[in-house]
Amino acid sequence: MKKITSKENPQVKLASSLKHRKFRLKEGLFILEGKKMVREALESSENALKSIFVSENVREEYESLAEQYNSVSWYVVDDRLMKHICGTETPQGVAGIARIPSWDFHKLLKSESLIVLGDKIADPGNLGTIIRTAFAFNVGGILLTSGSADPFSPKVVRSSMGGILNVPIFTDTDLGEIKAFKENGYVLAGASINSSLSYENVDYTGKKIIVIGSEAHGISPEIRGLCDVLFTIPINPRVDSLNAAIACAIILSRASLAREGL
Amino acid sequence: MKKITSKENPQVKLASSLKHRKFRLKEGLFILEGKKMVREALESSENALKSIFVSENVREEYESLAEQYNSVSWYVVDDRLMKHICGTETPQGVAGIARIPSWDFHKLLKSESLIVLGDKIADPGNLGTIIRTAFAFNVGGILLTSGSADPFSPKVVRSSMGGILNVPIFTDTDLGEIKAFKENGYVLAGASINSSLSYENVDYTGKKIIVIGSEAHGISPEIRGLCDVLFTIPINPRVDSLNAAIACAIILSRASLAREGL
Repeated sequence: MKKITSKENPQVKLASSLKHRKFRLKEGLFILEGKKMVREALESSENALKSIFVSENVREEYESLAEQYNSVSWYVVDDRLMKHICGTETPQGVAGIARIPSWDFHKLLKSESLIVLGDKIADPGNLGTIIRTAFAFNVGGILLTSGSADPFSPKVVRSSMGGILNVPIFTDTDLGEIKAFKENGYVLAGASINSSLSYENVDYTGKKIIVIGSEAHGISPEIRGLCDVLFTIPINPRVDSLNAAIACAIILSRASLAREGL
Repeated sequence: MKKITSKENPQVKLASSLKHRKFRLKEGLFILEGKKMVREALESSENALKSIFVSENVREEYESLAEQYNSVSWYVVDDRLMKHICGTETPQGVAGIARIPSWDFHKLLKSESLIVLGDKIADPGNLGTIIRTAFAFNVGGILLTSGSADPFSPKVVRSSMGGILNVPIFTDTDLGEIKAFKENGYVLAGASINSSLSYENVDYTGKKIIVIGSEAHGISPEIRGLCDVLFTIPINPRVDSLNAAIACAIILSRASLAREGL
């Protein structure tokens, strides 16, 4: 492991630049933080990680791992540099530069999955939680329309708790792509506050896309027009709405049971 | 409406001090932000609000309301002062000093409610979301153990989306109080990752307390020892756990259906 002490080091500059979407897109890279995420990325594929930064105080823990995964560049940094790389959060002494995964759109299109379509989910915490929950309930993929938070931004990655490495995510999904799913037999079921159909009476089996709109505006009119069915989660009428990630989780938990025949 | 221009104004100083738990406890007051919250507080009871701060640009909107609710002190402030009162977030031009509600513990103890016991839920966003979701699913009350986030902190209040005014919340709940609920016929059902009982097979009817532990540590041993039943939400084994607010919502949605006989 090579020791880095300067903010001007090219690897540190690269890592720090990845806080910004522009550079993530340009480089095809993003930052992973924390022991579990780094470990999982290492184990997931040979090519998932480009570099790993380790704090002095956890260096020993990573010596043997650094020998085992020697195609990755390993660096030791002090706490000040680690903070510079990761932003304000404490990253458990380890962070990595990861390659943005490229998932197979055609494979998802031809699958018989439960899919989530997030329509302008702008809050990073909500999007991360949706990704984490989607992974927990074996969702086949997540489609995001433009106007959604960037799934590879640090806050989304952090709250996805590893989901970001495991759930195929497609950004900037347009109406043509959604129509392609419909042409391949997918049914669009949209969560809405204006439906008399309760979520527990929806058919969740087979090729299904669950549409989750933004909290502020719900599902956008163009996508609502493509929905084959609209349904609602009945709640206390004095409450405006549920949090978008909460609504998504309630639906996915129900769908998960239904798809197992429960 | 009286115009305030100085940070040294006693009302502004009081409002700003309420960012800190110490002063909230001392004064029995907290800060509400946003049009909906302030409106709801005004309508909920004569005594809910002590003062309201309105930005210059929304002053006209509130003129008639200020006449109608004249037992509340109304102030006009500029954006700089509003930011000083509320912290960093944009509060839609209106904020109020509210009285911390005092709920009737004995009434909850004698009720036949669905109750949530949050055990050391330290993340303010999670706690606020739990309160919001509890309100949506008609939960009778929320008990919090010490070590939980303060429900009247600005971030919890904000993410509770009005739930804070409507769901009876009791902080620093101790083992004696939990035992009192059990003596009154309440059954404690704890969400755990180590149970073979799935959440959809739990009996949610009658006097029930759903125990939600912290994400990091689960339910603490003392409270786990008081649980009459432990259950789990089956998820992909590669996922460690669900977010605490997400787990709570999945359980409450199921419980809500069960309590309606669905």
